[in-house]
Amino acid sequence: MPLPPGVSAKDFQTVLRQFEGVVGKEWVFSSDEDVELYRDSYSPFWHEPEDPVPSAAVAPDGVEQIQQIVRIANKYKVPLWTVSTGKNLAYGGSAPRLSGSVVLDLKRMNRILEVNDRNHYALVEPGVSYFDLYRYTQERGLNVFIDAPDPGWGSPVGNTLDRGGGHTPLRDHFSTLCGMEVVLANGDVVRTGMGALPNSKTWQQYKYGFGPYVDGMFTQSNFGIVTKMGVWLYPMPEMRFSGTVSVPKHDDLIPMVDTLSYLMNSNIVLGTTRVSSSVTAQARDAELVALRAKPGGATNADLEDYLKRKNLPYWSIELPFYGPAEVVPAQWAFAKRKFSAIPGVQFRDGATNKLPPSPEDLAKVSNTVPLGVPSLAIFSSLPPNSLGHIGLSPITPMTGEAVFEVMDVFDKVFQEMGIDNVGVVPAGTYYPRSFFFLFILPIEHDVEKNQKMRSAFKRLVQLGAEHGWGEYRTHLAFMDDVANTYSFNNHALLRLHETIKDALDPNGILAPGKSGIWPKSMRKGRA
Amino acid sequence: MPLPPGVSAKDFQTVLRQFEGVVGKEWVFSSDEDVELYRDSYSPFWHEPEDPVPSAAVAPDGVEQIQQIVRIANKYKVPLWTVSTGKNLAYGGSAPRLSGSVVLDLKRMNRILEVNDRNHYALVEPGVSYFDLYRYTQERGLNVFIDAPDPGWGSPVGNTLDRGGGHTPLRDHFSTLCGMEVVLANGDVVRTGMGALPNSKTWQQYKYGFGPYVDGMFTQSNFGIVTKMGVWLYPMPEMRFSGTVSVPKHDDLIPMVDTLSYLMNSNIVLGTTRVSSSVTAQARDAELVALRAKPGGATNADLEDYLKRKNLPYWSIELPFYGPAEVVPAQWAFAKRKFSAIPGVQFRDGATNKLPPSPEDLAKVSNTVPLGVPSLAIFSSLPPNSLGHIGLSPITPMTGEAVFEVMDVFDKVFQEMGIDNVGVVPAGTYYPRSFFFLFILPIEHDVEKNQKMRSAFKRLVQLGAEHGWGEYRTHLAFMDDVANTYSFNNHALLRLHETIKDALDPNGILAPGKSGIWPKSMRKGRA
Repeated sequence: MPLPPGVSAKDFQTVLRQFEGVVGKEWVFSSDEDVELYRDSYSPFWHEPEDPVPSAAVAPDGVEQIQQIVRIANKYKVPLWTVSTGKNLAYGGSAPRLSGSVVLDLKRMNRILEVNDRNHYALVEPGVSYFDLYRYTQERGLNVFIDAPDPGWGSPVGNTLDRGGGHTPLRDHFSTLCGMEVVLANGDVVRTGMGALPNSKTWQQYKYGFGPYVDGMFTQSNFGIVTKMGVWLYPMPEMRFSGTVSVPKHDDLIPMVDTLSYLMNSNIVLGTTRVSSSVTAQARDAELVALRAKPGGATNADLEDYLKRKNLPYWSIELPFYGPAEVVPAQWAFAKRKFSAIPGVQFRDGATNKLPPSPEDLAKVSNTVPLGVPSLAIFSSLPPNSLGHIGLSPITPMTGEAVFEVMDVFDKVFQEMGIDNVGVVPAGTYYPRSFFFLFILPIEHDVEKNQKMRSAFKRLVQLGAEHGWGEYRTHLAFMDDVANTYSFNNHALLRLHETIKDALDPNGILAPGKSGIWPKSMRKGRA
Repeated sequence: MPLPPGVSAKDFQTVLRQFEGVVGKEWVFSSDEDVELYRDSYSPFWHEPEDPVPSAAVAPDGVEQIQQIVRIANKYKVPLWTVSTGKNLAYGGSAPRLSGSVVLDLKRMNRILEVNDRNHYALVEPGVSYFDLYRYTQERGLNVFIDAPDPGWGSPVGNTLDRGGGHTPLRDHFSTLCGMEVVLANGDVVRTGMGALPNSKTWQQYKYGFGPYVDGMFTQSNFGIVTKMGVWLYPMPEMRFSGTVSVPKHDDLIPMVDTLSYLMNSNIVLGTTRVSSSVTAQARDAELVALRAKPGGATNADLEDYLKRKNLPYWSIELPFYGPAEVVPAQWAFAKRKFSAIPGVQFRDGATNKLPPSPEDLAKVSNTVPLGVPSLAIFSSLPPNSLGHIGLSPITPMTGEAVFEVMDVFDKVFQEMGIDNVGVVPAGTYYPRSFFFLFILPIEHDVEKNQKMRSAFKRLVQLGAEHGWGEYRTHLAFMDDVANTYSFNNHALLRLHETIKDALDPNGILAPGKSGIWPKSMRKGRA
């Protein structure tokens, strides 16, 4: 395994011995077999020298141990790459951005410090998974609902720090963050928000505290090591219901999305949904293939006509509703009234589930996440024999016009490049007020294919940026590329990040390269 | 008027001439009469030497002018105190923390750059008031609802930067912030979130961008000058309805608040409300005064008995509902079902208003803010001949127990000090998941009374902090006191703020002392 850049083998041995003194011999991992486990199993650099490899890993069991570790790391200028549960598949897993970094593995810090079901929040350590949190609330019969991402083995801390999302009303996990404890690069422990008030009664109930509100600085960032986090939970709703809205014509998507936007921004439809297209679903139907192959391709009218013959809508959206037995049917009735302005619109009632769900109900669904039960079901929706994938996820306006444009722009490139685009989320609502697309590009254990995929990915990032659609998160391999697209005023935001980085972490020991932020000593010229 | 500390009269004249060169002679104010207008008209230091006085004011009309002004200020080390509309009454108005600062008055930057009623947001400059924004949306018939604080002459930018709140579903204004443009102390212009992507299509639709999310850093802060801001608006709801819930016994408040918490955290009750007590409302009734004057005071049973005779509830809460005609009655029905677990609970239907409100409906209400129409009505609820006030606003858990404790702890001090507490908001819901109290302490044009008030205020801040209740915002006069209560780990959070301050603004030209953050050269030893 590599050494940390610029650190001698002798010094590194000293560092490892000192780490052992802090955490115990059994919690420092430096054998090849152990370190191998921290590599990215979805790496797009499989078999290539660029594949980032840690030098070692260390697993502390508390804040004081982390303070000692960063002091040692500062002394010897050893870069640390922090992971919570390390399940960040498609974004790098537990591998570092910089080869030779020591993985700071927080899996042992897995205490659930509090779950409150009167004000609906939890205070957790980084190693707590969504499964752990769910189990804890179940065992105690707490009246809270878990908003898990897929899959559920990740942690609320890690997912929130990467600004991930779930599937139920809270969805946008950064918006649920309430109070942090952070170890800075100099070993200082900061509590944010109301946590800065000793004896505070509202660390998990009021986000902002007094003065600058700094929590966001520590997300997608290398400015500190988060050791505790408050997360808001949703009160257990009485039921979930979903109803599907379908419209017949291509251009119906415009009023359809405007109505969706009204319903979501009014807190009527809550939870993740997405726009589905029958044209996409039927892509392999022979008749459709023939229609599209004709000179000039298929017009919208051709496609509408084809779908009419097949008795299929052009677009549909499944609307999730969470709430009381009186309210949910009223919300669905209102949604139907609003969508009825679109000629030919059709409605279909979906499943009704009482919450918390019964074991029978859970057995009936393919994925329990929308019912508040963390799951690994998402893996079964991946292609068989999949060796991994990378997600391209541009954020676009929540409008029909944006959907048309995104599909047009990206489809052309996928066709040109001969890549079989698995666009798992076309126009999804993980975040309020905007659409989130998710295009999945496959990883292979084949250098040439991966190189082709990486170059396609970079081109797509660039193409999205040219159209004004930015990536919200990305794999280690593309962090510099994505950061470079956020270039307004000669990269003013990145330069601000760098100024803060240099002030807080002058030796550059925390996660060099994360989100494109490099410490001064490793900063390269910008394009 | 004073000079900026450490700046010679000659240099200051040079600075003013250079400012004139940037903004034009008519937009630099340095005569006594002009500068007087920037003083705090609610100052608790009335007639005292500590009353902060600016040295001058300058009103630029654009980002480039601000860039030039900060460059001049850096050269001569002149502190700038930025105000948007400068209506921050009870918190300092447009006066600076540090006497001799130049007020950077952004009132001329009052352009509404965009209001979008498909995705429901606005992009505004700092000088745009809630009235301006309302008028703009009315003139164009836009389908958005304005969440104004009271009063409406302040600006969305200023209110959001101070983390203020409104009265309708969005309430918590920081949570509506989406994208900023900021001029840093070095003159650099940063766009945050998706604004960092040139040609971005979602600057006002997706908050976080890529990498550290820094917007919160610029709130209640002196790290930059915000020149543009995106704010989310609520889609125009169909109606507003309010229903009142009343309970007969003292301890009923506990389940009552738990139910309120469930309803608010479930997005069923949205909008600001508060807990009302008939004991407080009847405080001057002779029978109650006598009852409380008996040896040992009145017990809860005495008070319950007294209220029963008067046919009054012990506690009541008016629940606001905003939404569609189908949904609002269902939400109220559900709320009644949930509250019915409390024996003796009573319900009363309040007003129903179609939205946008008709001129007739607006004429009927004493304050139009809950109907989405900015107003100055709040001033008429202040005592006649009021010379001003200061707000003490501790944040507490949203529980009945917390209400009991707050009332007990603070009332004792008010009584001891002989201060007539006008607790205008006992247990209000400006922010999700916590209660917000607002105690109003009067300002006089009387040095002795103000000194007494200030010392009471400081004692109350301290007392609140000892109980774990922090202030969310404060007047200039108490910024150091409040900042000092957030002292976890030897003021680690304040030290973090100072590290960032020194890195971004080494000459300390931006708003020295704001939120207790002083530049290195002015930093005093901490208690």
